[in-house]
Amino acid sequence: MDAERRDRASGSSRPIVFLSDYGLEDEFVGVCHGVIARISPSASIVDLHHAIPPQNVLRGALTLADSADFMPSDAVYLAIVDPGVGSSRLAIAVEAAGGAVLIGPDNGVLSLAWEQLGGAARAFDISSETVMLDPVSKTFHGRDVLAPAAAHVAAGMRIEELGPPVGVDALRRVSLPRADVRQGRLVCEVIGVDRFGNVQLNVRPHELEAASLGDRFVLGATRVTMVETFSDLAQGELGAVWDARGWLAMFVNRGSAADVLRLAPGSRVALERPA
Amino acid sequence: MDAERRDRASGSSRPIVFLSDYGLEDEFVGVCHGVIARISPSASIVDLHHAIPPQNVLRGALTLADSADFMPSDAVYLAIVDPGVGSSRLAIAVEAAGGAVLIGPDNGVLSLAWEQLGGAARAFDISSETVMLDPVSKTFHGRDVLAPAAAHVAAGMRIEELGPPVGVDALRRVSLPRADVRQGRLVCEVIGVDRFGNVQLNVRPHELEAASLGDRFVLGATRVTMVETFSDLAQGELGAVWDARGWLAMFVNRGSAADVLRLAPGSRVALERPA
Amino acid sequence: MDAERRDRASGSSRPIVFLSDYGLEDEFVGVCHGVIARISPSASIVDLHHAIPPQNVLRGALTLADSADFMPSDAVYLAIVDPGVGSSRLAIAVEAAGGAVLIGPDNGVLSLAWEQLGGAARAFDISSETVMLDPVSKTFHGRDVLAPAAAHVAAGMRIEELGPPVGVDALRRVSLPRADVRQGRLVCEVIGVDRFGNVQLNVRPHELEAASLGDRFVLGATRVTMVETFSDLAQGELGAVWDARGWLAMFVNRGSAADVLRLAPGSRVALERPA
Repeated sequence: MDAERRDRASGSSRPIVFLSDYGLEDEFVGVCHGVIARISPSASIVDLHHAIPPQNVLRGALTLADSADFMPSDAVYLAIVDPGVGSSRLAIAVEAAGGAVLIGPDNGVLSLAWEQLGGAARAFDISSETVMLDPVSKTFHGRDVLAPAAAHVAAGMRIEELGPPVGVDALRRVSLPRADVRQGRLVCEVIGVDRFGNVQLNVRPHELEAASLGDRFVLGATRVTMVETFSDLAQGELGAVWDARGWLAMFVNRGSAADVLRLAPGSRVALERPA
Repeated sequence: MDAERRDRASGSSRPIVFLSDYGLEDEFVGVCHGVIARISPSASIVDLHHAIPPQNVLRGALTLADSADFMPSDAVYLAIVDPGVGSSRLAIAVEAAGGAVLIGPDNGVLSLAWEQLGGAARAFDISSETVMLDPVSKTFHGRDVLAPAAAHVAAGMRIEELGPPVGVDALRRVSLPRADVRQGRLVCEVIGVDRFGNVQLNVRPHELEAASLGDRFVLGATRVTMVETFSDLAQGELGAVWDARGWLAMFVNRGSAADVLRLAPGSRVALERPA
Repeated sequence: MDAERRDRASGSSRPIVFLSDYGLEDEFVGVCHGVIARISPSASIVDLHHAIPPQNVLRGALTLADSADFMPSDAVYLAIVDPGVGSSRLAIAVEAAGGAVLIGPDNGVLSLAWEQLGGAARAFDISSETVMLDPVSKTFHGRDVLAPAAAHVAAGMRIEELGPPVGVDALRRVSLPRADVRQGRLVCEVIGVDRFGNVQLNVRPHELEAASLGDRFVLGATRVTMVETFSDLAQGELGAVWDARGWLAMFVNRGSAADVLRLAPGSRVALERPA
């Protein structure tokens, strides 16, 4: 990452990086913004992503982790994908070794990002009555617990004031399924499809290399050429690139690989050496 | 509501809470942001909700009112759902008893929120040439009249500088249809369906209590159990909760009640005591 | 345009006006916000529009140009519609005669806006290693080249520090197809359909006048009445207005002209004098 200027005036608040599965069809994100503005009027919010598929904790975790290198180093992360809202699951604040603070439900949605940010150094159970709104609803802890905690930390509250400590080893984690790598054959999974129809697979460079597939392989009956960028192929041609998050991605230049290949998140895909 | 810090530097602007039916498929919201930034560069904007169904004044009014308790107390509300744009309807600025200012068309979209904020204390007809852009289009008063007025008030202009006073009794109001409550039977209406498929009904706690339905009732042929939060039921089960806005809501844990019950905004629903 | 207050404190950053075809279904916009916040923590961003149809350079160019009069005069424009990302196309920064800076790929997406802002005064090839992230991906120059350049300029970097100069005459431009204007007949094209179903045509007032169609004409078998605003017609009636961007637009009061007329962007339309 390149040099980062820090001319933020002393006393002003830390930026909040906000990811959720709330969507923008409803007012949930806006209400959280309002709650943050009440507590920390000068807080700036980076709306990283609010279209995580509903209750898909892994997709939320992955997007947060893949984005962390590009966020301000003093960010307070607020990640809300929370199917267990109102249950006994904890609301947690985690301080990463690098100094970032991550706030969300204890269901693993923060776990890939704290690894990316240097590992979890310490964690706290958000339960201070000074922090939470009163009353706390049973169904919208984003508004009543998590956004207030992020706003207070952004405004300067020390993380240990949020509630009692929690052992970092007890925190829940998620992990991405690994690609099945063999000589000449790699079985993987679609982990995302973007607006342009690019299909992201759970394959990192060392895995493709280990499968010895080379720069040309087949996906079902379709030949795929590995290139550096979309415009290396003619319009309408299908290829593969290392995408900007570091995953293997199928694309069609000025078209949709998802449509052509009929793939969606969760689809299993086999990449093989040509016959 | 918990304590609210007000460390906004003196001289800086009031936050603008912006709701509209403009959607994000077009540039309407962005253009209003630009207009606000020209007039009040330091204004911060809470984008509360821009996906109000096109021209649905009641839904806009309801969302604004249900959100008001969570917004900064010195907010300037900008609410644009305006099917009568360019007609003789007024553009108004209303000061609520609590000090908040609400700006929008005089069609009732502000009315539920000003009641929530202490009642309308005084109102003005936005018509000052100092405030409006020149020329004023006939079809985009959000850009040319309402956003500029909000920006000027956020930047410190007194509300009475926006134009001549209007009697608050003359302002248009909307009201939500009331549920029909009888012993053992409550007929109500779907007022919203959120991204998670939760179905919001126009039923408040005192109404459900008056119908003496208890914690188990039927909706058509479907049994519904009243619980505290989604995860109180097994995955795929249907239940009801008091949602975070205080309305009765049907849900399916990790599923969509709207899909299961085939309900959409405006649907009539009867809740009855089990036979 | 009305008077513009400039009470931005000296030393604070210029506003960034951000348009793209990234959509909000993915994290691309949010990642660019994070990159900007790293480099220029106090920068404010006007998200003008992120739903430009994928890779539609002309639509991006048009929306940017039509919005420019409403943006802050010291804005740094960041426009990313970039089908040629990673190819030999340049990433450019253009200073308009009026002082605005425009940053984007050299494919014409900036060209209509710089004309609107007084013409291109000088241009630079963004290539400074101080500016670009390291490494630069082949597929996401928005994140690695363009957003960083906008953030640096917003924070005070002089445009000539971004890279070597480029002759403005060598820059790529786009242009809108012109309507075919004859006496009593005007053949034009749908350039956009908005959320409300209003259909925008590539027709300016002088062109409609030149065709001598008057205030009543026909579109296929449908009679169209030219009015000033939507509510001049009864609910459900079809008419035409000069829209807020200055284009001829078909509408149905409280309905969708796009649905009624079965028109979409790119459709050819003939307007004729009634028989």
